[in-house]
Amino acid sequence: MTTARSLGLWSDGANSLPTGPNNAITDVPGVMVGHRTLKGDGLATGVTAIMPHQGDLFRSKVRGAVDVINGFGKSGGLVQIAELGTIETPILLTNTFGVAACTEALIRRAIAQNPKIGRQTSTVNAVVCECNDGQINDIQALAVTVEDAFAALDAVAPGVVEQGAVGAGTGMTAFGFKAGIGTASRRMKIGKEEFTLGSLVLANFGRAGDLVLPDGRRPMPGAVSGAEKGSIIVVLATDLPLGDRQLQRVARRAGAGIARLGAFWGNGSGDITLCFTTADPVVHDGPDFQTVRMLSNDHIDVAFRAAAEATQEAILNALCAAPATTGRTGKLFPSLADWAKGHAQ
Amino acid sequence: MTTARSLGLWSDGANSLPTGPNNAITDVPGVMVGHRTLKGDGLATGVTAIMPHQGDLFRSKVRGAVDVINGFGKSGGLVQIAELGTIETPILLTNTFGVAACTEALIRRAIAQNPKIGRQTSTVNAVVCECNDGQINDIQALAVTVEDAFAALDAVAPGVVEQGAVGAGTGMTAFGFKAGIGTASRRMKIGKEEFTLGSLVLANFGRAGDLVLPDGRRPMPGAVSGAEKGSIIVVLATDLPLGDRQLQRVARRAGAGIARLGAFWGNGSGDITLCFTTADPVVHDGPDFQTVRMLSNDHIDVAFRAAAEATQEAILNALCAAPATTGRTGKLFPSLADWAKGHAQ
Amino acid sequence: MTTARSLGLWSDGANSLPTGPNNAITDVPGVMVGHRTLKGDGLATGVTAIMPHQGDLFRSKVRGAVDVINGFGKSGGLVQIAELGTIETPILLTNTFGVAACTEALIRRAIAQNPKIGRQTSTVNAVVCECNDGQINDIQALAVTVEDAFAALDAVAPGVVEQGAVGAGTGMTAFGFKAGIGTASRRMKIGKEEFTLGSLVLANFGRAGDLVLPDGRRPMPGAVSGAEKGSIIVVLATDLPLGDRQLQRVARRAGAGIARLGAFWGNGSGDITLCFTTADPVVHDGPDFQTVRMLSNDHIDVAFRAAAEATQEAILNALCAAPATTGRTGKLFPSLADWAKGHAQ
Amino acid sequence: MTTARSLGLWSDGANSLPTGPNNAITDVPGVMVGHRTLKGDGLATGVTAIMPHQGDLFRSKVRGAVDVINGFGKSGGLVQIAELGTIETPILLTNTFGVAACTEALIRRAIAQNPKIGRQTSTVNAVVCECNDGQINDIQALAVTVEDAFAALDAVAPGVVEQGAVGAGTGMTAFGFKAGIGTASRRMKIGKEEFTLGSLVLANFGRAGDLVLPDGRRPMPGAVSGAEKGSIIVVLATDLPLGDRQLQRVARRAGAGIARLGAFWGNGSGDITLCFTTADPVVHDGPDFQTVRMLSNDHIDVAFRAAAEATQEAILNALCAAPATTGRTGKLFPSLADWAKGHAQ
Repeated sequence: MTTARSLGLWSDGANSLPTGPNNAITDVPGVMVGHRTLKGDGLATGVTAIMPHQGDLFRSKVRGAVDVINGFGKSGGLVQIAELGTIETPILLTNTFGVAACTEALIRRAIAQNPKIGRQTSTVNAVVCECNDGQINDIQALAVTVEDAFAALDAVAPGVVEQGAVGAGTGMTAFGFKAGIGTASRRMKIGKEEFTLGSLVLANFGRAGDLVLPDGRRPMPGAVSGAEKGSIIVVLATDLPLGDRQLQRVARRAGAGIARLGAFWGNGSGDITLCFTTADPVVHDGPDFQTVRMLSNDHIDVAFRAAAEATQEAILNALCAAPATTGRTGKLFPSLADWAKGHAQ
Repeated sequence: MTTARSLGLWSDGANSLPTGPNNAITDVPGVMVGHRTLKGDGLATGVTAIMPHQGDLFRSKVRGAVDVINGFGKSGGLVQIAELGTIETPILLTNTFGVAACTEALIRRAIAQNPKIGRQTSTVNAVVCECNDGQINDIQALAVTVEDAFAALDAVAPGVVEQGAVGAGTGMTAFGFKAGIGTASRRMKIGKEEFTLGSLVLANFGRAGDLVLPDGRRPMPGAVSGAEKGSIIVVLATDLPLGDRQLQRVARRAGAGIARLGAFWGNGSGDITLCFTTADPVVHDGPDFQTVRMLSNDHIDVAFRAAAEATQEAILNALCAAPATTGRTGKLFPSLADWAKGHAQ
Repeated sequence: MTTARSLGLWSDGANSLPTGPNNAITDVPGVMVGHRTLKGDGLATGVTAIMPHQGDLFRSKVRGAVDVINGFGKSGGLVQIAELGTIETPILLTNTFGVAACTEALIRRAIAQNPKIGRQTSTVNAVVCECNDGQINDIQALAVTVEDAFAALDAVAPGVVEQGAVGAGTGMTAFGFKAGIGTASRRMKIGKEEFTLGSLVLANFGRAGDLVLPDGRRPMPGAVSGAEKGSIIVVLATDLPLGDRQLQRVARRAGAGIARLGAFWGNGSGDITLCFTTADPVVHDGPDFQTVRMLSNDHIDVAFRAAAEATQEAILNALCAAPATTGRTGKLFPSLADWAKGHAQ
Repeated sequence: MTTARSLGLWSDGANSLPTGPNNAITDVPGVMVGHRTLKGDGLATGVTAIMPHQGDLFRSKVRGAVDVINGFGKSGGLVQIAELGTIETPILLTNTFGVAACTEALIRRAIAQNPKIGRQTSTVNAVVCECNDGQINDIQALAVTVEDAFAALDAVAPGVVEQGAVGAGTGMTAFGFKAGIGTASRRMKIGKEEFTLGSLVLANFGRAGDLVLPDGRRPMPGAVSGAEKGSIIVVLATDLPLGDRQLQRVARRAGAGIARLGAFWGNGSGDITLCFTTADPVVHDGPDFQTVRMLSNDHIDVAFRAAAEATQEAILNALCAAPATTGRTGKLFPSLADWAKGHAQ
């Protein structure tokens, strides 16, 4: 797979952290990713599923947080995460008008697995995030179905993550280039223990002419375009033991990774980060008290750094992995990989 | 219609404000309400639509705000309102698992009215709020359809609002009594001008034994029940010219109205307020600058008072208008009106 | 001491919780309170100190949260609590223009105890909250000194808390009556363990004519006055093991206690709640990881209820304990205790 | 004065905006800046004053917003700005332990100008922001006095702003280099009108080895240092007509400018932005209603871009203007200007 590193577009600083084995969110033990891609008949869209662990999420909720960098977005399930700090379904990414179908799919799957939902116990909070792929995809078709969401959920796997124009990323663009799904990871050492933080992005933001590479170069996709109208969803996963506030604070640092590429979180962009830890999940109908292991804030900068770096690189990977594509109205969205090959240093 | 006032359950204080002609959210000029009720075959649910004005909301957005009192809820569209401060669809209320269908309905209606959506212009932010009516309704049936949402939208009308077990309120309960939809309004005088603030609630919260009436009495619906697992949605409408921050601050005061009835915004309750003004709407693709008229903060207490009072009374009206109903598992939810008649002073 | 209970102004509901032995914030083990009162020469002001535990707070920080109900206030130290969730100095309450002196006092005391502050380790976050006692006190005199703050800190003691017109409460009023410092507590049973939550308020809010007693009566202090211009500070202490988000959520419920008395968190009121737990403090320069015990959200309603109830009663106690007082411009602020004796039922 | 541009360290992108005549916050009409510097006897600290306009701020409040990027800070006055959206005193910057003295100075000046404060009208909200200059300055000396704050206020002037190791910036460092006060500005064209946005920073953040220049180079000040323990205060001023929410959103974009330099808003950093507009100030005891002119969100990206760019450049200017300085414990903080001269391209 073509990545920022394989193209020489990434460079570490003095304090940079090492990547995990796959340089992917799946480097966090237990995390899996699956895609469902829809193409043809004017469609270029899909669904991407992130599974925080392999068990029943409703019964064993991961602790998490949400950071709304810029809220021009229609994601579902964020309000409850912000209140309770738990995620109890897989996370689905899709196009803006696919949220309803994906929500229904998550509810149906949760009920199938836990028939007490909405009857003997509480309802379930479906988490679905979105970007608008209308520049390439015919979003008015409302093409994403409950079955497509099921297919993405059924496709989840550990290990290497397919990136670029795949799943929810099929029709996405960024900085005037074709973009989509990207991922990266960082390893963190605290005392004698090692932990991993992974970032997966659905990248669909940034105005043409604004992209700045880590080496300071500014790739132009062609003419400077109009206003930014995109979005970016960032999902951060880690196995680092973090408290509620810490999860929130780590989530916020994804915005730094985005800004380093030259973006300023534009008005029309729904820029949203979800962050969860697999440490100390919360058991549904669990005991009266549980204990949570929590990192000292004296060491949390390493997680902040990992979140910013991995998100910056994940976005570059989304750009590098996606091939040039012609949009719905004939406009070409070139490939950053092609640009890089034509501008080798 | 049976109301708190008709039963003698309301009493004004020294600084209380007068009601509008219908004591309803529709006292705010232009605001309309419609219901779609589903009953039978284990169902007791529905949809309630609130139309902020009679024009095309996508083209003429009302300015608004959202206040999350307690975020154990699955409402849709709140994140974008929090960021941009505009509401661009009607507001639909329904049961927790009806959000996806209602969202799709609002998207389809908006596209039908504005075919450029998602193609030549931005997508549309559907606003759907919910409570869990699972104690009376078979929520797992996912019975609410896109057509039901259309029906509620088509039923909107000005004037008297049907209250109690109707529309989204059909299967709702509060403090162990049957509840549902309630509304109330207050008139406000600023200088020589008069304005109205109306509150409409979907009341489905509060533990049995916690209800406190304005006169201090504490009606018991029978045995003290288990934990509160409900929710309340409050929609505040006004024609008072307010700025962004002011709308947010008025929204927050609905929580005071709820608390005065003895609630403490329980853990399992999705307590959410939307507040909008019909003054100075924002035109889609409008001019570079617009002017907004804004109340002096020296007078904003009158709007705070109106929001708290109208919400408190709207909840009592929801309780008074709903008849005793037997739940899905045979439990009886008595009527507050019946209690009041048996405890006349 | 005259209290709401001794005057018959308090009544429990079906689900109410029992009080602690002193019905005071000091019922939480380790919590101490001290007052410094300034009177004469046009002054009627002071300082009240709350000590979360008896050790060195900078070295053993209590975990806490802040909830800004209405931010028309000049309290210091809140931003860092909101970010980090720790309190590392005693909490001082004073008048609006006494914040600077109290801040300096807390810094000097912390440096004296920990000479590395600002040199080999971080600086210290002084927590000082305030209300405007300008109706009785000559606030322009800036009379509170660093030494007055020291005196309050030196006066802290466990056990019975002096209430009413004492310490920071000396010049405060509420609902047109004389008010000041009040406190109350609640006991909570989780499984076989017992915990305490205490509330201490500096009550200086509420428009005359708005006060509603638990039995529904509405005491009038005389003529209906102008706009509310006061404030209320609420400090909640508990030994219940709570996580970061839970502390935040418990803090928010103090607002319900305030609203139950008829207030709506007026525009000119700085209504702020601090909440801390003595469980699992955070050690300065501590180990890489610590464990925190955390209540299941299934049981957190008991803490919400305790916060709302104890705050409601603490305010009533502040009103009941303060004697009638003439203000700076000759206006009389009557005593609620006198009203209660004249309106015995 | 040595600036990033004079050293060739700044480079514009395709969409970059032009600077104002002085490339300073004072390019916004009416805005003035003044410094008071304290040096010698182990001291290297001071006060910097920003005057939003030349009138009486208490009577004619500028509308503003605050964005807490990371709240490890002790600034004063932020809570009320967040609630009301108005700034009613000059803004003072100083060291962490100088906040109390600066607060008292602002209160005394406001009372002198408006003797009704705290008597016939409300109290006044003093705005003081801070960073910890303890690496160079003996912060325990609490050396900043009320008179020093007066001196900074008396020194305000329009036009060129002195930068680097001056005023509050005297003892500050960033990324292991000497830093301090920096400023920059951008011009914005909306239709046929032109507006200015200026940024002034007190830069004291960033770990050695993390700084990334706009051209991708990473200057090292010497050995990689320990954890970031600094802070940054950003003050954004504009004459662009913005609504409450828009001011908040523009404020947030300063964080993007900080992140572009390689920072990730570290744990120990109090990163705070104030943003105000001189358009449509709010008159104290003003009329019942006022009108506010508000930019269409379709054009707000230009203000977002200006905020990010001007803040990024202001920080570089702070670094470029400050000469190499030896810290309190003998550690050298080199000058970025010296580095740039030694690394000319």
